[in-house]
Amino acid sequence: MQPADAGIDTAGVTALLGRGRTLPLADLRAAVGRLAAPMDTVAAYHFGWIDAQGRPSEGDGGKAVRPALALLSAEAVGAAPEAAIPGAVAVELVHNFSLLHDDLMDGDEQRRHRDTVWKVHGPALAVLVGDALFALAQEVLLELGTAEAARAARRLTTASRALIDGQAQDISFEHRERVDVTECLEMEGNKTGALLACACSVGAVLGGGDEAAADALHAYGYHLGLAFQAVDDVLGIWGDPLATGKLAWSDLRRRKKSMPVAAALAAPGVAAERLGELLTADAKKSQAEFEDFDETEFATRAALIEEAGGRAWAEAEARRQHAVAVRALDGVAMAPGVRAQFVALADFVIERSR
Amino acid sequence: MQPADAGIDTAGVTALLGRGRTLPLADLRAAVGRLAAPMDTVAAYHFGWIDAQGRPSEGDGGKAVRPALALLSAEAVGAAPEAAIPGAVAVELVHNFSLLHDDLMDGDEQRRHRDTVWKVHGPALAVLVGDALFALAQEVLLELGTAEAARAARRLTTASRALIDGQAQDISFEHRERVDVTECLEMEGNKTGALLACACSVGAVLGGGDEAAADALHAYGYHLGLAFQAVDDVLGIWGDPLATGKLAWSDLRRRKKSMPVAAALAAPGVAAERLGELLTADAKKSQAEFEDFDETEFATRAALIEEAGGRAWAEAEARRQHAVAVRALDGVAMAPGVRAQFVALADFVIERSR
Repeated sequence: MQPADAGIDTAGVTALLGRGRTLPLADLRAAVGRLAAPMDTVAAYHFGWIDAQGRPSEGDGGKAVRPALALLSAEAVGAAPEAAIPGAVAVELVHNFSLLHDDLMDGDEQRRHRDTVWKVHGPALAVLVGDALFALAQEVLLELGTAEAARAARRLTTASRALIDGQAQDISFEHRERVDVTECLEMEGNKTGALLACACSVGAVLGGGDEAAADALHAYGYHLGLAFQAVDDVLGIWGDPLATGKLAWSDLRRRKKSMPVAAALAAPGVAAERLGELLTADAKKSQAEFEDFDETEFATRAALIEEAGGRAWAEAEARRQHAVAVRALDGVAMAPGVRAQFVALADFVIERSR
Repeated sequence: MQPADAGIDTAGVTALLGRGRTLPLADLRAAVGRLAAPMDTVAAYHFGWIDAQGRPSEGDGGKAVRPALALLSAEAVGAAPEAAIPGAVAVELVHNFSLLHDDLMDGDEQRRHRDTVWKVHGPALAVLVGDALFALAQEVLLELGTAEAARAARRLTTASRALIDGQAQDISFEHRERVDVTECLEMEGNKTGALLACACSVGAVLGGGDEAAADALHAYGYHLGLAFQAVDDVLGIWGDPLATGKLAWSDLRRRKKSMPVAAALAAPGVAAERLGELLTADAKKSQAEFEDFDETEFATRAALIEEAGGRAWAEAEARRQHAVAVRALDGVAMAPGVRAQFVALADFVIERSR
């Protein structure tokens, strides 16, 4: 077993994510292939299997963190990773349903360095294909017809509802002057934690694990999600556009009340006070007015957030959540090699730069 | 038992639909009340429980055909109607999820004589609240935690996928010059038949009925849906705007390839030929050009469809599907009083004018 502070097992994480991409791929493609035209083509574009002209492509289908975790969670209860394949497919389908709809709602034109689905195929198909992937996710589980699959489907539904609640909170926060850290963590737990928690437990459920094991793995995944999100929030303001594929100060442009912002606003001192004044004024602007901002305006806000300690708080929060996640693994008696992979993935999540 | 041709049992249908509205209402409201703000409010507006200003309202929440059928389907297998309540709620949630998204995709500004959700609360909330209702539908069933509920959830998922496939086909048909009757029936079976089939079987499943009974009731619901749709397609062209709440020639304005259009195009003769030429030219126009049409253009198309026999075909198809639906009821040994209600509802569906 490899301790968390011995450096990241990069090769191990690469292998784990690689398996998350490849092992469920045939089933994922078969599920998407069930959709009526033109939804099958639009979904294939979204997953990066074809380009906008319909030509086969080796696009970036995402990091496959969720399917990788689903497979590993079957192994955590002593089952073969293959037992988790329908769960891995279902979780990946729900994740991509949410990406399709969120990109449309947020007006995001780029995802994984490509035009988003609504941009290429129009808003109607973005809505419809998102709906189809969501329905497909339930279908893939429920058609197994077992009691385990029904339990897995219930967990997936709970996670999906949380995901949707989180998106509603995220949107409503954009129009507010301030959000406290508790509200922010609740929103991000819904938006990111819940589905990762499901990914980490769905394989255990399908693999015949008991509820206690599934709940412990759920807790690991939930806190892993918050650690991931803390890092994401830092990258959303200070990330390198070349690495993230997003504009500089991306989250500030959209008035996201992410962890660094919430923590900075709650801090004492003049930087926090000045930031509060600016964000109060910002909240009164229309999105169009706001987008006309000079770049230096965003730089000013980013500097104030950092000065008020928001960046340091989020970086520390990533480490705190990482520690809670790793501790949750003690609730399951699993093979040391499996545990080491969960730990390596958690290490990877808080050290990533994109 | 009342034969289908003895006149419609209007009082019986009114009572059945009334029960469909009232009996599941507390559970439906409780389910919607679980949604995070502001989705709970937006959903309450959609269901007609509050107006656009948030004041309590006694709005038109729809005919409640689906929940009424769900309750009746429990009685068909000898269970109490209450056994079907979660199924009635789930089916009604899926129906309303599809209305929210379809109104947005189709750009419809009015539903049940009120502004649609996307018009009042914006497209993002229409997407999100639709998603939430869809997720809630699965949750309401799966949280029962029984084997029957898992079977019901699987049927609901299959129906939801068909619904989404049907909407995709409907949209793609709008851009085509012609669609044959088989394609049209497949699309309308997906869009309307599948969820009605689920409504008619979900109560039987939750009430402990076997798969054969559920399948027979499913067949009744599927063909009832096609009968309903045949009537709807006639009303979509020739319906009285005051009764339907839609513009005259509503489906022609949107280039819908509904049953009368498909049947007319397939007919021999000059009217069909002239109609084909017009629709070929129409298919090349943008929606904006098309909306600039003089009203007489729609009247011309409607007259040609009628002359080519499209209206008569759809009216006959409604009666054919009605007969198949009623025959399917023979597959379940149910109390005569319950059977009479299924028959009365089928009679009502093909005689309605709105």
